[in-house]
Amino acid sequence: MTFAFRLTSSDRSPTAPRTAIVTTARGEIVTPAFMPVGTLATVKALSTDEVASVRAQILLVNAYHLYLRPGHELVAQMGGVHRFMDWPGPILSDSGGFQVFSLARLGKVDDAGVRFRSHIDGSEHFYTPELAMEVQRSLGVDIAMPLDHVLPGESAIEPARDAAERTLRWYERCRVAAGDLTTFAIVQGGVHPELRRWHARELASLDAPGYSIGGLSVGESKEAMWSMTAAVTAELPVDRPRYLMGVGSPEDLVTAVGTGVDMFDCVLPTRLGRNGSVFTDAGRANVRNARYRTDPGPIDPQCDCMMCSRFSMAYVHHLFRNEELLGYRLASIHNIRYLIRLTERMRASITAGTFADFRDEFLATYRSADDATRTEQKAKWLKQSGFEPDAVR
Amino acid sequence: MTFAFRLTSSDRSPTAPRTAIVTTARGEIVTPAFMPVGTLATVKALSTDEVASVRAQILLVNAYHLYLRPGHELVAQMGGVHRFMDWPGPILSDSGGFQVFSLARLGKVDDAGVRFRSHIDGSEHFYTPELAMEVQRSLGVDIAMPLDHVLPGESAIEPARDAAERTLRWYERCRVAAGDLTTFAIVQGGVHPELRRWHARELASLDAPGYSIGGLSVGESKEAMWSMTAAVTAELPVDRPRYLMGVGSPEDLVTAVGTGVDMFDCVLPTRLGRNGSVFTDAGRANVRNARYRTDPGPIDPQCDCMMCSRFSMAYVHHLFRNEELLGYRLASIHNIRYLIRLTERMRASITAGTFADFRDEFLATYRSADDATRTEQKAKWLKQSGFEPDAVR
Repeated sequence: MTFAFRLTSSDRSPTAPRTAIVTTARGEIVTPAFMPVGTLATVKALSTDEVASVRAQILLVNAYHLYLRPGHELVAQMGGVHRFMDWPGPILSDSGGFQVFSLARLGKVDDAGVRFRSHIDGSEHFYTPELAMEVQRSLGVDIAMPLDHVLPGESAIEPARDAAERTLRWYERCRVAAGDLTTFAIVQGGVHPELRRWHARELASLDAPGYSIGGLSVGESKEAMWSMTAAVTAELPVDRPRYLMGVGSPEDLVTAVGTGVDMFDCVLPTRLGRNGSVFTDAGRANVRNARYRTDPGPIDPQCDCMMCSRFSMAYVHHLFRNEELLGYRLASIHNIRYLIRLTERMRASITAGTFADFRDEFLATYRSADDATRTEQKAKWLKQSGFEPDAVR
Repeated sequence: MTFAFRLTSSDRSPTAPRTAIVTTARGEIVTPAFMPVGTLATVKALSTDEVASVRAQILLVNAYHLYLRPGHELVAQMGGVHRFMDWPGPILSDSGGFQVFSLARLGKVDDAGVRFRSHIDGSEHFYTPELAMEVQRSLGVDIAMPLDHVLPGESAIEPARDAAERTLRWYERCRVAAGDLTTFAIVQGGVHPELRRWHARELASLDAPGYSIGGLSVGESKEAMWSMTAAVTAELPVDRPRYLMGVGSPEDLVTAVGTGVDMFDCVLPTRLGRNGSVFTDAGRANVRNARYRTDPGPIDPQCDCMMCSRFSMAYVHHLFRNEELLGYRLASIHNIRYLIRLTERMRASITAGTFADFRDEFLATYRSADDATRTEQKAKWLKQSGFEPDAVR
């Protein structure tokens, strides 16, 4: 197992913003880092050349999705997921914990594992901590996640405690099954600060190579998400990476880095991009807006992405008005580059000792969009999946 | 006007296969050449980097479409179509003749021009030879087409003669309006060999910088298309480029080069690509076919495109099964590269004096697909547009 984490900033308090270097067999990742999401072994609409061109250092793929399609054995036969999608750099996989409890249907969970029906063809599957690790080993990823039990954001404390305890028991089984595959622990606990702190301490005592913060951005308020994140990082060892799963938006990244988070992933930049919504420091803009029809400039003169450096907004507007695929590509590239550039700017300000100013200025200027639709959708998935709190046992 | 055409092969009979160099202000084009189609100033699903990577030498855009969306004045304001789409090489535009007689509705044609309703919003427009040239001058293309009168492939000789005569009268007006913009002449005449020959001779006497063969692949049989093409090239000056418009498929390219055609364009490679159908020397294959699910190799080991050189068919199959945009890109890239590589192979065989062998072998091996759907669709458009032969006057 080639895996190391080295802090490169000096403030060692557990919730301080920090810079670091994560070392994997396939390369280093400087943090804070945003990981583009390639759920099905492709970052939607982008080639891996483009993913490299926006200076992504590591990608994310999803074990649940690849288990169902095309199957992890097939990916292994094709030489592993790096070869399959032709990305030579580091890859992190999510175990599919979130998906088996949200996208999948008719599930039953007990300590043995989760019985669910595929969201694609209704076929029945039994997913266990051991299977989650086997899938990720077959993919050949550089960093794996253990199977975790995810609940909707507003779940009451009793089911949330059950789920967190199960996640803890499952992590111990995942570590055994992982062999030499680097496997982070995932902190759960809903929106209950004491539960979150307890879970973080329990997992911290197991000396995992890294810590993920799961079960957030799934229907709770932004304030709850931010305070849970800070409550967890306060309990985690300083010398391990912290990864806030499924987050997020520019304001989420800036706020979470401010409380000691190192890594992020989210489908938001590509999903918004395909919808014509692009990040700027002032907030999101929609390229379909009539004001861009005759705009000869880029949306962001500071941005070095393909969209901003080579095309007028008039051209991007024209592509979207005509549903041309190149438009979806350009906006996705811009949004990922925006988030990665944001991590680069935060890194520079941490190094310069000016992060607090950067954050305050950024949050004062950035007009936060209402992401309620997205987090409510995630919450709805979790509730509709058949895994009601009563069924948790 | 920077435009030149230099034959580089020795057989000067008018229907002999040949190689040549077309010189424009934005670069040279060696022929035979296939031009990818970027109707709306984007080759569907591809970036211009990818268009360059498949070694396209020249692109095609469409004056009718850009006149309606986003408007040729806007493209001019943005610095012209090269800057707009960021393609520094040569661009040829179609005048929109085919589109005003097919996509548009409720039209009336007389010698003054064509009154039509937009296929997008029903707005009424009057398109004239002069307006077609003004649009193309605003775009700033390197090679323009005159407005021509296009009929369905099986039109009777009387309306076909009327249309050819009008196309001839319009060409003289287009030349005046073109100023120093290089403007080819377009040979019409339906499936009537005498009419085709007469039209070609009339246009040849006008000493155009190049000759397009229009009104084919619009509902007539392949045999009719091939024999019309040969009838026309026999009458055209040897020292001018010949461009077979809207064609085509691999077998069409090989057959037409065999009768002295130099240039081609067609939406087929990108349209088929988005549908998962890819060219091989044995015919078309559909990447969705179950046989590719576990195929570790490329579809064509000889092909140097991004799809064939970097990915397994298993991966491409996986992308299409999941409707991932990258799949559409890869298959489009492969198909365009296939046609361009086919022109490169023909060029090499002409230079080596072995073209006849190449053609016979190719046509014996290539399993021709039934393109009836496509040409019937074009014919249907032409018939439904409201431009019935009776209305031609």
